[in-house]
Amino acid sequence: MNHRSTHGSLLIVGGTEKNAENADILGRFIELAGGAEAPIAVITAASNIADQVWGHYEQAFRALGARRCVPVHVLARADASLPAVLEAVAGAAGIFIAGGDQKRLLARIGGTPLHDALHAAVQRGACLAGTSAGASALGVHMVTHGQPDFNPAVGAAGMGAGLGFVPHCIIDQHFSQRHRINRLLSLVARNPQLSGIGIDEDTALVVGPGARFAVIGAGAVTIVDASELQSDIVDTAPGTIPLLLGVRLHVIPAGTSFSSAPDAARPVPAPLRTLFQHLLDTDRP
Amino acid sequence: MNHRSTHGSLLIVGGTEKNAENADILGRFIELAGGAEAPIAVITAASNIADQVWGHYEQAFRALGARRCVPVHVLARADASLPAVLEAVAGAAGIFIAGGDQKRLLARIGGTPLHDALHAAVQRGACLAGTSAGASALGVHMVTHGQPDFNPAVGAAGMGAGLGFVPHCIIDQHFSQRHRINRLLSLVARNPQLSGIGIDEDTALVVGPGARFAVIGAGAVTIVDASELQSDIVDTAPGTIPLLLGVRLHVIPAGTSFSSAPDAARPVPAPLRTLFQHLLDTDRP
Repeated sequence: MNHRSTHGSLLIVGGTEKNAENADILGRFIELAGGAEAPIAVITAASNIADQVWGHYEQAFRALGARRCVPVHVLARADASLPAVLEAVAGAAGIFIAGGDQKRLLARIGGTPLHDALHAAVQRGACLAGTSAGASALGVHMVTHGQPDFNPAVGAAGMGAGLGFVPHCIIDQHFSQRHRINRLLSLVARNPQLSGIGIDEDTALVVGPGARFAVIGAGAVTIVDASELQSDIVDTAPGTIPLLLGVRLHVIPAGTSFSSAPDAARPVPAPLRTLFQHLLDTDRP
Repeated sequence: MNHRSTHGSLLIVGGTEKNAENADILGRFIELAGGAEAPIAVITAASNIADQVWGHYEQAFRALGARRCVPVHVLARADASLPAVLEAVAGAAGIFIAGGDQKRLLARIGGTPLHDALHAAVQRGACLAGTSAGASALGVHMVTHGQPDFNPAVGAAGMGAGLGFVPHCIIDQHFSQRHRINRLLSLVARNPQLSGIGIDEDTALVVGPGARFAVIGAGAVTIVDASELQSDIVDTAPGTIPLLLGVRLHVIPAGTSFSSAPDAARPVPAPLRTLFQHLLDTDRP
């Protein structure tokens, strides 16, 4: 297994992270990137208001002491091959993918040289962060849209191809604030091989460095595990509620961390071992 | 085990049930009570607008063909001992507890002769229905209040003593429409011996007659099973999010029914066996 312990860390943020006081998440990002002198690249490609997004993060990172931040604007797919864009990512110790629309992000950078450069950066040890749309995009599989009304429903949420940094998961964001548990249930019910990860606003799942993960920020990360699911969903009509039996649900509040290192203070509890393998295994898409 | 197969049926309704077209739930209630000629008593004690509540159900039941409906108004605790009140319940084949506030309902009738009369009615085979507050009140244990913001939280929901018809469960209503999963998670996390039952609006869980249960109406019933929970909740400060690992979640859409009879077409699936025992066992409070 090609283990993430040989790679950089991922910071998967549920959106709306604080940017001034109590900016735990952005502060941790700078720390994981290597501190105030670390070169940071902010990718605005998910947004149609790239200048505003960059202005927001330029100010936020400066307020936290980071001095070497540059924007990576990709307004069209061709921009994702520009030497200046690739150099910014190649030189970065921290890369931050800002929010917007994950479909726009993938349409602009999926399969481009910039996409390859992001993988190369993580492989050489950079910290890659994504917030909101940028968080969902980190999976191999990505939620694209959908809001079931009140219950899980067949066909109520859509999926697409993501950037491929988290192989066996599907990541949703603004999770509790937008009541997205039914959207995530709808997706994992159809895809029980994937761990569903719901990240609250101002909350992040930190994967690595090494064989550990942590939840930081203000809320919680909710895990939906359908690996033992019994369901009639494949025979259920679109728009109707499927029978779902045996979903496993875990709520991990901020302040929690686990490690699979032999001497870990908090070893990974049995119910989270599948998730842990899914997060750390980089081999099987 | 004193099994519910020797008792009448329970109809546990999530509130806001339709009362004219597609009145599946009220129609099923009349059917379980014995049809158009069955004597029906409507208990309005949960409400402070008892006349309006009675007017609503009088019209609804009449529209569905029921011809022998009477109100049971209990405006003060002393009313729950009145001969006319006890006679109405003693003579009823169907008893419908309308909504309002479950704390008011219990304050007015808990431990009174009317409370005893309700148990006697179910023991002789009557159908007992409760909607909204009347549904929550059917448990031995009852949710009284509480609305966690976005996550399960320590101390975010309160409990009290209910009417005692469903022993090992805690029943919540308006479940999906009011996003109450976190309230129910907060309660079962502290009380893992109880099955959490969340019933959507215009949806009902029908228990009995005999060893079977069904979900009817428009939505679903969500079961939260914390029997294998790993949590730090007893050591977590009030208002904060506890670590919850290994909650089991089941979604049962309307149209589903199960039976534990030896010749059942749909036997109870393994993940629901604990719930089934909890619903049918009337011995252990």
